[in-house]
Amino acid sequence: MPGNTFGKLFTVTTAGESHGPAYCCIIDGCPPRLEISPSDIQRDLDRRKPGQSPAVSQRRETDSVEILSGIFEGFTTGTPIALLIRNHNARSKDYEALKNVFRPGHADYTYQKKYGIRDHNGGGRASARETLMRVAAGAIARKYLSTLCNIEIKGSLAALGSIVISNEDPDSSTDNDFFCPDPKRLPELRGVIAELRKAGDSIGARVNIIISNVPAGLGEPVFDRLNADLAHALMSIPAVKGVEIGAGFAAIMQKGSEHRDEITPTGFKSNHAGGILGGISTGQTITAGIALKPASSIRKSADTVTKDNEPTTISVTGRHDPCVGLRAVPVAEAMVALVLMDHILRDRAQNNRIF
Amino acid sequence: MPGNTFGKLFTVTTAGESHGPAYCCIIDGCPPRLEISPSDIQRDLDRRKPGQSPAVSQRRETDSVEILSGIFEGFTTGTPIALLIRNHNARSKDYEALKNVFRPGHADYTYQKKYGIRDHNGGGRASARETLMRVAAGAIARKYLSTLCNIEIKGSLAALGSIVISNEDPDSSTDNDFFCPDPKRLPELRGVIAELRKAGDSIGARVNIIISNVPAGLGEPVFDRLNADLAHALMSIPAVKGVEIGAGFAAIMQKGSEHRDEITPTGFKSNHAGGILGGISTGQTITAGIALKPASSIRKSADTVTKDNEPTTISVTGRHDPCVGLRAVPVAEAMVALVLMDHILRDRAQNNRIF
Amino acid sequence: MPGNTFGKLFTVTTAGESHGPAYCCIIDGCPPRLEISPSDIQRDLDRRKPGQSPAVSQRRETDSVEILSGIFEGFTTGTPIALLIRNHNARSKDYEALKNVFRPGHADYTYQKKYGIRDHNGGGRASARETLMRVAAGAIARKYLSTLCNIEIKGSLAALGSIVISNEDPDSSTDNDFFCPDPKRLPELRGVIAELRKAGDSIGARVNIIISNVPAGLGEPVFDRLNADLAHALMSIPAVKGVEIGAGFAAIMQKGSEHRDEITPTGFKSNHAGGILGGISTGQTITAGIALKPASSIRKSADTVTKDNEPTTISVTGRHDPCVGLRAVPVAEAMVALVLMDHILRDRAQNNRIF
Amino acid sequence: MPGNTFGKLFTVTTAGESHGPAYCCIIDGCPPRLEISPSDIQRDLDRRKPGQSPAVSQRRETDSVEILSGIFEGFTTGTPIALLIRNHNARSKDYEALKNVFRPGHADYTYQKKYGIRDHNGGGRASARETLMRVAAGAIARKYLSTLCNIEIKGSLAALGSIVISNEDPDSSTDNDFFCPDPKRLPELRGVIAELRKAGDSIGARVNIIISNVPAGLGEPVFDRLNADLAHALMSIPAVKGVEIGAGFAAIMQKGSEHRDEITPTGFKSNHAGGILGGISTGQTITAGIALKPASSIRKSADTVTKDNEPTTISVTGRHDPCVGLRAVPVAEAMVALVLMDHILRDRAQNNRIF
Repeated sequence: MPGNTFGKLFTVTTAGESHGPAYCCIIDGCPPRLEISPSDIQRDLDRRKPGQSPAVSQRRETDSVEILSGIFEGFTTGTPIALLIRNHNARSKDYEALKNVFRPGHADYTYQKKYGIRDHNGGGRASARETLMRVAAGAIARKYLSTLCNIEIKGSLAALGSIVISNEDPDSSTDNDFFCPDPKRLPELRGVIAELRKAGDSIGARVNIIISNVPAGLGEPVFDRLNADLAHALMSIPAVKGVEIGAGFAAIMQKGSEHRDEITPTGFKSNHAGGILGGISTGQTITAGIALKPASSIRKSADTVTKDNEPTTISVTGRHDPCVGLRAVPVAEAMVALVLMDHILRDRAQNNRIF
Repeated sequence: MPGNTFGKLFTVTTAGESHGPAYCCIIDGCPPRLEISPSDIQRDLDRRKPGQSPAVSQRRETDSVEILSGIFEGFTTGTPIALLIRNHNARSKDYEALKNVFRPGHADYTYQKKYGIRDHNGGGRASARETLMRVAAGAIARKYLSTLCNIEIKGSLAALGSIVISNEDPDSSTDNDFFCPDPKRLPELRGVIAELRKAGDSIGARVNIIISNVPAGLGEPVFDRLNADLAHALMSIPAVKGVEIGAGFAAIMQKGSEHRDEITPTGFKSNHAGGILGGISTGQTITAGIALKPASSIRKSADTVTKDNEPTTISVTGRHDPCVGLRAVPVAEAMVALVLMDHILRDRAQNNRIF
Repeated sequence: MPGNTFGKLFTVTTAGESHGPAYCCIIDGCPPRLEISPSDIQRDLDRRKPGQSPAVSQRRETDSVEILSGIFEGFTTGTPIALLIRNHNARSKDYEALKNVFRPGHADYTYQKKYGIRDHNGGGRASARETLMRVAAGAIARKYLSTLCNIEIKGSLAALGSIVISNEDPDSSTDNDFFCPDPKRLPELRGVIAELRKAGDSIGARVNIIISNVPAGLGEPVFDRLNADLAHALMSIPAVKGVEIGAGFAAIMQKGSEHRDEITPTGFKSNHAGGILGGISTGQTITAGIALKPASSIRKSADTVTKDNEPTTISVTGRHDPCVGLRAVPVAEAMVALVLMDHILRDRAQNNRIF
Repeated sequence: MPGNTFGKLFTVTTAGESHGPAYCCIIDGCPPRLEISPSDIQRDLDRRKPGQSPAVSQRRETDSVEILSGIFEGFTTGTPIALLIRNHNARSKDYEALKNVFRPGHADYTYQKKYGIRDHNGGGRASARETLMRVAAGAIARKYLSTLCNIEIKGSLAALGSIVISNEDPDSSTDNDFFCPDPKRLPELRGVIAELRKAGDSIGARVNIIISNVPAGLGEPVFDRLNADLAHALMSIPAVKGVEIGAGFAAIMQKGSEHRDEITPTGFKSNHAGGILGGISTGQTITAGIALKPASSIRKSADTVTKDNEPTTISVTGRHDPCVGLRAVPVAEAMVALVLMDHILRDRAQNNRIF
């Protein structure tokens, strides 16, 4: 399979470019008789929508989804579900100047090298706007996971540059424009963003994901371990530079007697494993963290070259996110949902289990 | 596809259990007319072989490979290559006591939950011994990458617990039992291992991988980005808890003006991206790091439960690695080779390029 | 992968139901820099469009295609191509009576058994109207095959019931509403159709496909032989009950000395193999034939049951094809194009060949 | 995936050449806790073994299988099952003369064209001996199908050249060296084979397959219809030139009022569909037929060319089958078993059904 399909049994194939007529996706393998309304999908799309706060891109899009197939009288039919979202606020003229210039930190250079041709408008296929179809498809997976399996997936901002957000309350709300689980820190975060906008710069971020109520037994060793598929899914999100599960990089410094989670008749004593052992879920909460690089589209000038390898400088104006990590939260949740959904179906195929 | 196949065009399917009769793998999709001798494969197998130093498991295996098919008069024929390695030093009696007990930190519990049955001898399929077929298959990929594309993949120990090994010389040799690029640190490392053996404990590690001479253009957005497939491959190695590419988790603290690698007519000014932009290789060196948890098979006693959920304690004796991170080095190199080989074929299919 | 994707490297995923809002497909893996205009696609769509002659269904659809992505300034970019065709002439009321009744010979019964839910309007997903996206996607493959490889694919009506059309002139035109290579037979064919319409009945058909200029070397033994993939592709077309390659079923009566195609320095002496040996193309013309059952949607009354297994009778009125074999011609051509395109990419990946 | 893997969820990857050291296969996705003994596999292998009667090749092989993994204490564990069969009676010297000559009707020419290299001994990978691993893997699928689903798959000789075997008794035994369901015809069949051996020629055959007790609901429209996957599977068997389901090519002459199988509360009135509608099983008996070409390895001399395109003649001696259609019977049964097993798992994944 080429690279625009995710999943093996619950598959999502996406298409679309930032300034083309539309994005669409086809979801195949969704079990029949799942109740789905457009609002189930729209809810998650609205969470990643740009233009909703000063913290994110000011591009104005309704991002409203049309269901083209696969849902009949409000229920999935087992046939492929096609979703369509039209682009409304494309502003190709913003990009005319970038036609022959490679923006540092972007995929302009690599798409040109790979394909010998590229749609330069807003990054074309490489634009992070592509993630909206992941969120739309993920919403269907989440509906299934939540309704039939009680699985909940919750992402939150864990760091914005050097500001670390600790999250001591697992039930804390992240219903704010920073997906921040600790609302007391919001003024501080807003201050950082304001400063970055002023300076024409951007900053990296860390996002944590907590997955509750996953049954034991999900994951397909040896290559398609649940953690490996999560790593694949999360690393495929634009700007992600690192993924860790459970103790993650901290495990380097741990001793075996500390890391291994001892077991008692009432459960595990700890969760350094992050809910996965040998590539298979243990039934504990799954925890993951991702590192997101700072956005490369900034006003500050940078050296670069043209398509003809002539030196030039660039200052990216237009409508951009000072911290792409923020809007990555619903995207990360969606990718996790797609992985879990896929593994539930894969496990079911081999093991005949009913979740 | 079930979980024991890796790759889409250069596929490796492995089978085998730690104390069963043999491991084998089938490699499909290898280009024809590549010269391969058994020693090309044996060389890498010997690098991960146990029993070669006090730093690793004392299990004695020759790990000698038999080529069953796909190579004719010394050259690949384009047909599937089957490799066979018999287990010689299986000691099932070591494991009799573990038949009904779940070792903490191991897959015993999860395999039982998933399949309702498990081969308990040495972890069965979940044993890290499974990685020997990855190394065997990876050796064929490496031969191709090195011979036809000049690509070199080099892993090295970057940290053992709190001991950080800095590697300032890219050409340094790692030809020692610690895969350590700085031989001055070997006595210190040996000391740590000796202490751990004495204490019946283990320690985590970090492994870095450097991939040189990768051409620009490898990677299949949006889901099968080169970094996503590397993350998948590396996270599928037993004991890996984290993966980072380029700046990795350090990118959280970086500003856009710092992270983005500016471009000049003679090349990039820096390599925070780690050689990949938008999921496609830039032509720069690709850099990755992985975190490995400490081995769970240690002598120190731990609480656990039996299959019937009765409390018990366990002290794992037998032949184990005090730091699984060491022997993970050739495994990580092999997995990277499989990813690159696969992406070269995928790129070639679509782009008609000849590497 | 679930069942709505065809191909491994040039993949086509389709979605849509007969009376839903739209059909769409996503084509992934198309090589970049191929010139494609909407008319390249529309031309083939128009060949399978209903309502164009008394010989076919009278449903009126423009079947006009919108390109949503993957083509930039007239050329493919290597990114996924999404195509959209809206349904305009849906007449759900025609189907209200069929909501709870299974039409014999249709998929009504089996979809209900499989999914426990079905869109009954015009057969929903099971409608042969689904093949329009195959034709749209196939048109892109054909453009590539024709432009870059000079491969031509030509289907024609070979039998309508007991009327056998012999085709002695390989260059004969099939540009008529019966895809008949021998225009002298058209009045006879029209007579049969008129009679069937009057009788409220339908008839089977045979379609032959001739593929010219296929290079030697396409096909991936042992399972994905070129003939096996052609059989898969052709048998996936609604109403197809049989597939043969080369001598086909006539080979049963042949002796080895007759069937094997002897070879001379200037080429093969015959082509009983139909252009494929050992699953790989020989460079000769590939010949295939398919058998299509008579349409099941006819006016003649039949016994059937309701969803509740109550006996009833049914007479299917509405807009139907008296011989579904006719419009199957462009569909068969499209499926063959998808197979060849896929195998060119697969061969290229492994063999580094440039077609 | 390259071409040596069959199936999507119950996957079989095979490797091996006719005169190499061994054949092996890896079966992945087999449900756990299925009881399997070596004799379950050996039984079917013995049915296709050469050298057992004058009607088939006189090559002497034990074809005895070694289980390398995936089965623990007599039960599958859910991990990959590797099977190994060593070649004992390889006689490479038989083939020395064929090193540079293309045998007409064989894959010699096409493998050379595709890969630029080939193992010429006994056809190498293209030898029909490759099918023994299909039979071994199929035996595991059959055990599951028979034990858990009561599904039975029965192939039989339906024609040998112009001799047509009618099979009026579905319970008739085919336990003879011709897989002939009508033992009265055996002398006649033996006569034909004796004559062919004398004449140094061969003959085509037809094999019918009857699949009983398939539940309704198997098959994944639109591309992976059950009939499409059966066509793929059966056409991938060496020498197969045609596949038909149900009425097959006879459907060309049928009217809709005749072909469509009317339904009553107690079941279908007929079975022209062959047990599949819209690509999904109806619950009726599935019927299929295949045409096999006459063997090309015959003593009668033929014109051909050398690798350097010099004209020459060839008379193939050695140990060959005068009618490859005979030993194709257990192979066809095995391929059908693999398709059904795969579709049961695929259906289970999406539909949560327990067969």
